[in-house]
Amino acid sequence: MLEKVNHIAIAVPDLAAAIATYRDTLGARVSAPQALPEHGVTVVFVELANTKVELLEPLGEASPIAAFLEKAPAGGMHHICYEVDDILAARDRLAASGARVLGDGNPKIGAHGKPVLFLHPKDFLGTLVELEQV
Amino acid sequence: MLEKVNHIAIAVPDLAAAIATYRDTLGARVSAPQALPEHGVTVVFVELANTKVELLEPLGEASPIAAFLEKAPAGGMHHICYEVDDILAARDRLAASGARVLGDGNPKIGAHGKPVLFLHPKDFLGTLVELEQV
Repeated sequence: MLEKVNHIAIAVPDLAAAIATYRDTLGARVSAPQALPEHGVTVVFVELANTKVELLEPLGEASPIAAFLEKAPAGGMHHICYEVDDILAARDRLAASGARVLGDGNPKIGAHGKPVLFLHPKDFLGTLVELEQV
Repeated sequence: MLEKVNHIAIAVPDLAAAIATYRDTLGARVSAPQALPEHGVTVVFVELANTKVELLEPLGEASPIAAFLEKAPAGGMHHICYEVDDILAARDRLAASGARVLGDGNPKIGAHGKPVLFLHPKDFLGTLVELEQV
């Protein structure tokens, strides 16, 4: 069911400082920041040869990563996103196994314009898992 | 400097249950467990098309992931490993920038038989970063 790791997301309190860390200290290629007010984040992508790291900074009043950064003010690994071929088939298989899909169970259009679902960390080894149909 | 994401490591309290989650629930290919007593862990790899996820269970009395699992008993994302071409050049560049390399600053032979270094999470957005020369 899982194909590739689409991205690993890291929540950060200060995107400019995070960009400097990845671009200048670690020598990676980093995309231009994109504000996504409908998702409550500003994002950049660290572009590796085989996948990418998404750096997320809270945007607006009700950012979905605000609570995470309250617990981890310096930042930290927030979720891992796997690509699937068929997100509805994946959801149905997961629901049948008893795993919890977050929200109302219907895919939303994610930050990359593709259908995504998030899975409950308690069912996946303490890790927030995103599935993206590519 | 950073080339590929070699792996994303997830610390887990129960490797058999974690294997079942990734293999049976998520439908991924999972390697056979390897006990690495010199590293204090038993590992399996979840083999994705472009990278891998390393599931780590503590092994022995002084496992380096025991403290992590005390704080996160259900498990959680533990580190991210990037490939570099030249680990000594990478270390020297990082040290010159003021970033902290863990241990004595000399690469160790990691769980995959290759030279590795770990970087201080406080210098990298709350994320433990491993560099591996491949």
